[in-house]
Amino acid sequence: MVRKLKVAVSGLGRMGARHAINYLERTPRAKLVAVCDPSPTAIEWAKTRLETSGVTLYTSFDEMMAHPGIEAVIIAGITTEHAPQSIAAIKAGKHVLCEKPLSTDVDISQGVVEAAKQNPQLKVMTGFSRRFDQSYRNAWAKADAGEIGRPVVFRSQTCDKYRDDDYFIGYSKVSGSIFVDASVHDIDLALWFFGQDSIVKSVSAVGTCARYQGLKQYGDVDNGVGIVEFWGGKMACFYACRMMAVGQHDMTEVIGTHGKLTINANPTHDLVEHHESTGIRREIAQTYWDRFEPAFIRESNEFTEACLDDKPLPFKLAGAVQALKIGSALQESLRSGRKLFFDETGARINESMAKL
Amino acid sequence: MVRKLKVAVSGLGRMGARHAINYLERTPRAKLVAVCDPSPTAIEWAKTRLETSGVTLYTSFDEMMAHPGIEAVIIAGITTEHAPQSIAAIKAGKHVLCEKPLSTDVDISQGVVEAAKQNPQLKVMTGFSRRFDQSYRNAWAKADAGEIGRPVVFRSQTCDKYRDDDYFIGYSKVSGSIFVDASVHDIDLALWFFGQDSIVKSVSAVGTCARYQGLKQYGDVDNGVGIVEFWGGKMACFYACRMMAVGQHDMTEVIGTHGKLTINANPTHDLVEHHESTGIRREIAQTYWDRFEPAFIRESNEFTEACLDDKPLPFKLAGAVQALKIGSALQESLRSGRKLFFDETGARINESMAKL
Amino acid sequence: MVRKLKVAVSGLGRMGARHAINYLERTPRAKLVAVCDPSPTAIEWAKTRLETSGVTLYTSFDEMMAHPGIEAVIIAGITTEHAPQSIAAIKAGKHVLCEKPLSTDVDISQGVVEAAKQNPQLKVMTGFSRRFDQSYRNAWAKADAGEIGRPVVFRSQTCDKYRDDDYFIGYSKVSGSIFVDASVHDIDLALWFFGQDSIVKSVSAVGTCARYQGLKQYGDVDNGVGIVEFWGGKMACFYACRMMAVGQHDMTEVIGTHGKLTINANPTHDLVEHHESTGIRREIAQTYWDRFEPAFIRESNEFTEACLDDKPLPFKLAGAVQALKIGSALQESLRSGRKLFFDETGARINESMAKL
Amino acid sequence: MVRKLKVAVSGLGRMGARHAINYLERTPRAKLVAVCDPSPTAIEWAKTRLETSGVTLYTSFDEMMAHPGIEAVIIAGITTEHAPQSIAAIKAGKHVLCEKPLSTDVDISQGVVEAAKQNPQLKVMTGFSRRFDQSYRNAWAKADAGEIGRPVVFRSQTCDKYRDDDYFIGYSKVSGSIFVDASVHDIDLALWFFGQDSIVKSVSAVGTCARYQGLKQYGDVDNGVGIVEFWGGKMACFYACRMMAVGQHDMTEVIGTHGKLTINANPTHDLVEHHESTGIRREIAQTYWDRFEPAFIRESNEFTEACLDDKPLPFKLAGAVQALKIGSALQESLRSGRKLFFDETGARINESMAKL
Repeated sequence: MVRKLKVAVSGLGRMGARHAINYLERTPRAKLVAVCDPSPTAIEWAKTRLETSGVTLYTSFDEMMAHPGIEAVIIAGITTEHAPQSIAAIKAGKHVLCEKPLSTDVDISQGVVEAAKQNPQLKVMTGFSRRFDQSYRNAWAKADAGEIGRPVVFRSQTCDKYRDDDYFIGYSKVSGSIFVDASVHDIDLALWFFGQDSIVKSVSAVGTCARYQGLKQYGDVDNGVGIVEFWGGKMACFYACRMMAVGQHDMTEVIGTHGKLTINANPTHDLVEHHESTGIRREIAQTYWDRFEPAFIRESNEFTEACLDDKPLPFKLAGAVQALKIGSALQESLRSGRKLFFDETGARINESMAKL
Repeated sequence: MVRKLKVAVSGLGRMGARHAINYLERTPRAKLVAVCDPSPTAIEWAKTRLETSGVTLYTSFDEMMAHPGIEAVIIAGITTEHAPQSIAAIKAGKHVLCEKPLSTDVDISQGVVEAAKQNPQLKVMTGFSRRFDQSYRNAWAKADAGEIGRPVVFRSQTCDKYRDDDYFIGYSKVSGSIFVDASVHDIDLALWFFGQDSIVKSVSAVGTCARYQGLKQYGDVDNGVGIVEFWGGKMACFYACRMMAVGQHDMTEVIGTHGKLTINANPTHDLVEHHESTGIRREIAQTYWDRFEPAFIRESNEFTEACLDDKPLPFKLAGAVQALKIGSALQESLRSGRKLFFDETGARINESMAKL
Repeated sequence: MVRKLKVAVSGLGRMGARHAINYLERTPRAKLVAVCDPSPTAIEWAKTRLETSGVTLYTSFDEMMAHPGIEAVIIAGITTEHAPQSIAAIKAGKHVLCEKPLSTDVDISQGVVEAAKQNPQLKVMTGFSRRFDQSYRNAWAKADAGEIGRPVVFRSQTCDKYRDDDYFIGYSKVSGSIFVDASVHDIDLALWFFGQDSIVKSVSAVGTCARYQGLKQYGDVDNGVGIVEFWGGKMACFYACRMMAVGQHDMTEVIGTHGKLTINANPTHDLVEHHESTGIRREIAQTYWDRFEPAFIRESNEFTEACLDDKPLPFKLAGAVQALKIGSALQESLRSGRKLFFDETGARINESMAKL
Repeated sequence: MVRKLKVAVSGLGRMGARHAINYLERTPRAKLVAVCDPSPTAIEWAKTRLETSGVTLYTSFDEMMAHPGIEAVIIAGITTEHAPQSIAAIKAGKHVLCEKPLSTDVDISQGVVEAAKQNPQLKVMTGFSRRFDQSYRNAWAKADAGEIGRPVVFRSQTCDKYRDDDYFIGYSKVSGSIFVDASVHDIDLALWFFGQDSIVKSVSAVGTCARYQGLKQYGDVDNGVGIVEFWGGKMACFYACRMMAVGQHDMTEVIGTHGKLTINANPTHDLVEHHESTGIRREIAQTYWDRFEPAFIRESNEFTEACLDDKPLPFKLAGAVQALKIGSALQESLRSGRKLFFDETGARINESMAKL
């Protein structure tokens, strides 16, 4: 009989519940054996949806970790628990897939990387879902094959649909601000296409609260644009937005010396177009889940395969810290109004010391 | 000084007035010298718009023809006058550009062709405006260069925007029915891409009055589809419609053995897209003029150039009769409900005689 | 514990193997318990891919049917076995999902419908995969909500990518010709959008062998166009092709009195566009599987749900016979060169009897 | 008879020759009476193309200005002559259309504005051709009607097709660098959509020479990105590039609180799509003239109409100086590597003084 990876999921919030279902139903080589969440509502949901399929429910992470036979843990609870639970799971000898961000704090994130380094036999990954998206993979394969020459300019956006409530305000409080929470995906993609060893030379960002004034209290904005310059003549331009009318429009352009690739420049959710008296209309994804659901499924399957077959993961954990560092720098630049400078080793320097 | 072609325009209706303006203002090598129209309204318009630029106005075609120095005549009045005026102008030694159709009657149309044949020094053309459209030209050049192999299937549509009045009903009375008036453009394009010497093997058509019941009295429909089979393994599928919600959507596909070309499969009027809460919307042309205005300007300039420099016209007059014959056959098939058959010479035969 | 539907799959060819994997791995409420195929190659594949997950392998359909506990059978072997196996399974009290076509013969297909009628407690469905496609469903919901008024004209195509081998020739021998094998999907969609009770008034079709001369021996073509007229002022235009250069381009337009819906008029496989010196290029699906994979997964899940929860299937089995009848009429019209006529009850009549 | 505006054109280089032809042939209410250019090649061209239509040729600007009856002058020679000739023409009582930039120097540009202010009866305009483009006008009308709420983020690019020669290097020497020459159009558009009274708060830019190393000697780059922050919570992100593979891709996005407008996000040159084995391909404009030719024609016609009928020009001359100031600031930021700061009056301040 085929061997299946025994998986546990920590946290059954929006994303955690989706992970649980994915490992239960859409990851053939995995077997979801246990989940944990302190919330009674979550447990209620899990009784109907998971327990009936033989999954054991826990309200405590530690108790769940004692469940016999767990080989891999998906960490998807509140952000502040990401790093401690990841480290605990690594120390307990489990493979770990931790939702992004590892932490909103660079040093704490680095702690997870250190723990993983000491356990090189374990697979430890963070959930950069776009890395598993068919379109990004197709674009990357073309770029990697040299079809656009050398990538020079990278432009990428994460734009959420406007919500007529204060979700984004509450979310900002815990998730880190827009460049850390949303742009971090675009930053990770920039590092993918430019090379994971790219070193930042300067960072500058601006932003505004156009629709959610409540974000100001957290030093956050609902529209932010930033430029990250890398040593070696490469630059990235990021845009993050919480007020798109049309839907979730995450888009990327990679401009090379000999061509350009776009991913979702011309968005559409399905293949329908509606010809009506006011024009031709097409609909787009409304949420990140509408857009990236297949990527999350591929993520769970590839993570499982890497654990079972001891294959390399598609990207390195340390990249998450790199991306977080850049996101944090953008956020600092936004808040201070200042441009930040770094030397060829990536160390922060004063403007007066910058070779310009 | 540069020599300019002295042009007269007969008929100042919707299309005639546009021709007059095009020859007055947008055809540098032409000089509009005279126009005629029996309607007082038209003359009133011309007093302001044309007479002030030195154009002489007439209410009679014959009187206009006596105007000294006219070298070319644009025939754009009512359909029943197209052929007689064209023949008269040819006999008077003038170059002729006659709006389509030469006539709704095949024999009468043929009379114009005969008159032209007897005056080979004259340029005589009919107004198949799509032949001058940049996109059709680009597609034809690609097809002609062999980029799609041998064209096998041709699909083309002329779809007008729905009008909340009885314009199309009155129009049907004088212009010939939908396959003769509208599809004739698509048929002409099919002959262009398949070769002007293509011979029809069979014709069948169906249609319905979905929104304009008043068309029934003229044996006409507001939606018609027809198939024309040519000897040699080629076939064309035509669609004509008078009730599009979104606008004027004229579209063509040419499917070859090794590729396909589409013209306006993905229509847009300008380069704007509007992202709003219901989706991404773009507008399209509302009328044939919105869509083909630049083609009409190119038509007047190329016709002028052919007359002045004795260059060949881009297509032969006889093609107009061919296209009309096919349009008439589609119309007959629509009305009789029967499929029509033709032998290898293009002669009509009974079903029982058809080699099938 | 959740109850799972015990499923068996008959036939492990191209499509059967995909069904087996779908029921094994991608249909959470189903449990694949047995498969059968007479071919040693298929059994070899199944040993590695299915037996290791606890699926029992058989070389005989009858032996498989004796496997204890089977509740539903997927019939996906050779076309000639579709009807006999379906009838046998129905008589054995199993739910049945039979791949299309039930048969290339209308009477034999009707036999399956009769068997199903006598066992109304069973779910019996045929695999019209497009009915499960997200885009078609979205379009249908819009049409059903009246967003385009009354559907009047339906245009739909099934266009396969050209293959540099004789696959389509061998396939034609067993699958029925192009209108029966390929257009049957488009015909089924026409019945869906026009109403399952639509009655055919006339049928005419033409075609040619442009690239596969070997199809002629089976009375088949590689390009066929046909018009189906329905009583009540509705008409459908179908195009089927085996030589598309770019890929699998299945496309549909539904033109209503007040708007139009298109499905895949503007095809794309993913969200990447490549800007290169010759233009902007996007890739499309290469095969029906590339295009419809998610629809097949939804099909297996919805079929399973209907069986377990005794829910109605999304469409009626009888529709498959209706669609086959129309496809056969198109094929007859293609072969005879004649237009076929039907009265208001759908009974075939001579041209002389037709009210035209 | 209709009165025509007597126009002279100074400079018959690439753009000047096009202006001359536009006023000769495509501006019905204008009459081109004289042109000047010191270059024998230009005069040679003009002998054939202009003199034959009655246009008088001069090698000297001053001599041309003495030509009797000139009412308006188009200044299209070398950049360094733009301001002096404009001022001379204004002082001579002529209407002036001066190609952009008025000068690469802000103070010199301001001199033209001052001269125009002292002659308010004259029409003095600079050639921001995009202001006359149908798509930009359509978008602006929608924005002005409130269809996207309040514009907050503006993203715009001017991307030239790569040329396999050193044209851009030589051009950089005289035209000002990329932000002054190319992005000035985007900056002007930002001021149009945000309001001409928008005041800059900060500017930062980076860039690189990816393909044209020769640009470095002029402090210029072939790829530059910059952010301009305006007081009042608005920001613009500009991208300029000299190495696009696919063609001229000038594109703009205007993101408002309630919707977004894009102009040319999904570029195409005509309505043809080519389906070939590698995908579906469409071509785009290769040069700014391919893209904006109709806008230049509308420009000459509207300028002529404003002069003849004493109508207001569509935008103010002072805007050209505003745009140049911002372009120069971007260029300074690029060269210094520093972010620049401005107070609420638009006056330059030190970082230490900036309220951040």
